[in-house]
Amino acid sequence: MEGYEEYLIEGRNAVIEAIRAGKDIDKLYVLDGCQDGPIVTIKREARKTDAIIKYVTKERLDQLSSTGHHQGVIAQAAAYNYSEVDDILAEAEQKGEPPFIFLLDGIEDPHNLGAIIRTANIAGAHGVIIPKNRAVGLTATVNRASAGALNYTKVAKVTNIGKTIDELKDKGIWFVCADMDGQVMYSQNLTGPIGLVIGNEGDGVSRLVREKCDYVTSIPMKGEIESLNASVAAGVLAYEIVRQRMYGK
Amino acid sequence: MEGYEEYLIEGRNAVIEAIRAGKDIDKLYVLDGCQDGPIVTIKREARKTDAIIKYVTKERLDQLSSTGHHQGVIAQAAAYNYSEVDDILAEAEQKGEPPFIFLLDGIEDPHNLGAIIRTANIAGAHGVIIPKNRAVGLTATVNRASAGALNYTKVAKVTNIGKTIDELKDKGIWFVCADMDGQVMYSQNLTGPIGLVIGNEGDGVSRLVREKCDYVTSIPMKGEIESLNASVAAGVLAYEIVRQRMYGK
Repeated sequence: MEGYEEYLIEGRNAVIEAIRAGKDIDKLYVLDGCQDGPIVTIKREARKTDAIIKYVTKERLDQLSSTGHHQGVIAQAAAYNYSEVDDILAEAEQKGEPPFIFLLDGIEDPHNLGAIIRTANIAGAHGVIIPKNRAVGLTATVNRASAGALNYTKVAKVTNIGKTIDELKDKGIWFVCADMDGQVMYSQNLTGPIGLVIGNEGDGVSRLVREKCDYVTSIPMKGEIESLNASVAAGVLAYEIVRQRMYGK
Repeated sequence: MEGYEEYLIEGRNAVIEAIRAGKDIDKLYVLDGCQDGPIVTIKREARKTDAIIKYVTKERLDQLSSTGHHQGVIAQAAAYNYSEVDDILAEAEQKGEPPFIFLLDGIEDPHNLGAIIRTANIAGAHGVIIPKNRAVGLTATVNRASAGALNYTKVAKVTNIGKTIDELKDKGIWFVCADMDGQVMYSQNLTGPIGLVIGNEGDGVSRLVREKCDYVTSIPMKGEIESLNASVAAGVLAYEIVRQRMYGK
């Protein structure tokens, strides 16, 4: 596909049709407390998808609405289509390379998400996995910050990052996350099929995800500041993987 | 110093006193076409400093003003104090390390500038040199994006990046910039006293600065997108220097 646009679908019929047509709905804004038939149907159908349902006031809906006819429901849809994790693995196989996947454990800033997808593309990763509930989705800001990488690099959205890690481990992929007390990345073997886990901007990698990682690695820190910007850290780690892929451990 | 705040100084007496007291003025907004005595004095004094003089309309001054009494002149001052290039060299000497300096050839985005200063701090660089005229100064946004690194890492502002490179070369520092047609960074010797030149977000390193660099290096590019985000590129390059400092070429 060429380009990317995020758009709003407003009104009961339009939203229910979009969901049934399989459109990729990021968020569903529903009037808080509204319990009538069509709205109940929309919520039930939306729960079968990846949409995040947000209960909001009428004022918020009026503010979001561009048509003025939202009838208590607005869907935010992505023109971008998410990939499946299997598509990412297929991409690696097709290129004849061991899988190299980014897993983002709760990146919140759309500029960071975009910059990381851009980095994933340039570093030759086969895809990026983002969680459904924590973290930002593929908004127009993310697309701009990705410098167009969103049109090339596969992004999959999963319900449970931990479960996805388990499934990928069964397929022979090793997982590494970064933390201050890890072994210095230059001395760690990061070759082979690998999933690079990048934590949240403020909190880092969540405990559950960290425990699932095979390696905890660290970027040498020589200054007073505690951590790099999340997208810079992702770049530094990704390129250590690139180096080891090119020259070996 | 603790923290950072950018502030406005408004009115003729306040501005002239600030300049004479040696306050660090980033920008001086002067009413366009205003030629009376005090304003001419302010402009003359400001030209002896690093301040960038902007001629603006009365409407713009009114908009900037928080007191409503700008009298045709507003100065934007940095609570942060710039260092000199010699301070950066002294820092390296004091630590007993070969100098490691970032030179930013026209970074325009304050978030990128902040993230790069943060990276410089963490990668153990001794300072960051920015040009006076192109590029963004040390605004409050830069400080926030630096995560406080601005309070630790020396930043010097120079009139002519090319001239500064020449002077530093005389002191034994080698300069490297990144470009697509350079030699892959992993195979280049980046040990020893080094200046890492980072180009502008859109245009990269300017021709004049590029010609002064001893090495042109490249980050391996394996995707469809042409370049990394400037702050990510700075991080990737800086950490290749860190790696070679730790383990040798």
